[in-house]
Amino acid sequence: MTMKYGIVIFPSKKVQDLANSYRKRYDPHYALIPPHVTLKTFEASAGQIREASDTLSSIAKNHKDFDMSIKKVSSFQPVNNVIYLKIEPTDGLNQLHQEINEKIIGEKPEYAFVPHITIGQKLSNDEHSDVYGSLRMSDVGHEETVDRFHLLYQLENGSWSVYETFRLGKD
Amino acid sequence: MTMKYGIVIFPSKKVQDLANSYRKRYDPHYALIPPHVTLKTFEASAGQIREASDTLSSIAKNHKDFDMSIKKVSSFQPVNNVIYLKIEPTDGLNQLHQEINEKIIGEKPEYAFVPHITIGQKLSNDEHSDVYGSLRMSDVGHEETVDRFHLLYQLENGSWSVYETFRLGKD
Repeated sequence: MTMKYGIVIFPSKKVQDLANSYRKRYDPHYALIPPHVTLKTFEASAGQIREASDTLSSIAKNHKDFDMSIKKVSSFQPVNNVIYLKIEPTDGLNQLHQEINEKIIGEKPEYAFVPHITIGQKLSNDEHSDVYGSLRMSDVGHEETVDRFHLLYQLENGSWSVYETFRLGKD
Repeated sequence: MTMKYGIVIFPSKKVQDLANSYRKRYDPHYALIPPHVTLKTFEASAGQIREASDTLSSIAKNHKDFDMSIKKVSSFQPVNNVIYLKIEPTDGLNQLHQEINEKIIGEKPEYAFVPHITIGQKLSNDEHSDVYGSLRMSDVGHEETVDRFHLLYQLENGSWSVYETFRLGKD
């Protein structure tokens, strides 16, 4: 039997509180998981996840803390109606994403990595226009340091529970 | 500025799914945190939490994996109307609880430790009688191994986000 897993970065409480102030109204996944940056999702058996956990430990050791900068609210339209806090791509984040996707089982990403924190989704076209129109000029500038990422699994009700934390540069 | 922190054990997905099947109907905290065993809650500043995190690391190293056994549904009535999965006290769990409460800042517990996973709360007396009456004979026997605990913090909306995982007996 396989379970669904996710590898994510949780931003600071300040950013999570900001994102939740939007998600409460615009994101039906609001109650299922705190605000996050997804690095990978995959399915795995119990045996596979033990191996993945070991691999993530060694990946974490080989990376250093890096800065994560949020500059603006953006949208994936016309691909889909997801509104998000756009994270500036940095070498530290890109390299972590790349190594995780190369070394952890599961499908390779089909698209370029656009790091983001979702604040609205499953909106109709009209809702999307209204919400994005009112949020796109918001001043959401913020910078912080990322020093860890988390491995989560999904419960039957669709919510996510944390299995393990990996600290960058730590043994 | 202080934040609210919690130290908890998340049981296996199987137990979390079971607990959520009850919590969905009977626990208004259903969406705020996955099913858990609380070891301690406390308030701390950023500086204090770094120290607490180091202390929790060394506590985790000094403890070994232990078995956690659930035998029945129970209730804290008449103290309050909380219905829970009762966890059999074991030396491993008691010692971990005791060391965390001795070494981590915050108030010492006023009552004996009754390890439990809440499945219903904030029920009226009538609701409590109905629900507990129908659940108290449920066959919820289950045993599993605990090999980790987690440090969480509370967001503005009342939900909890995981800060760190501590694996028992690991460096």
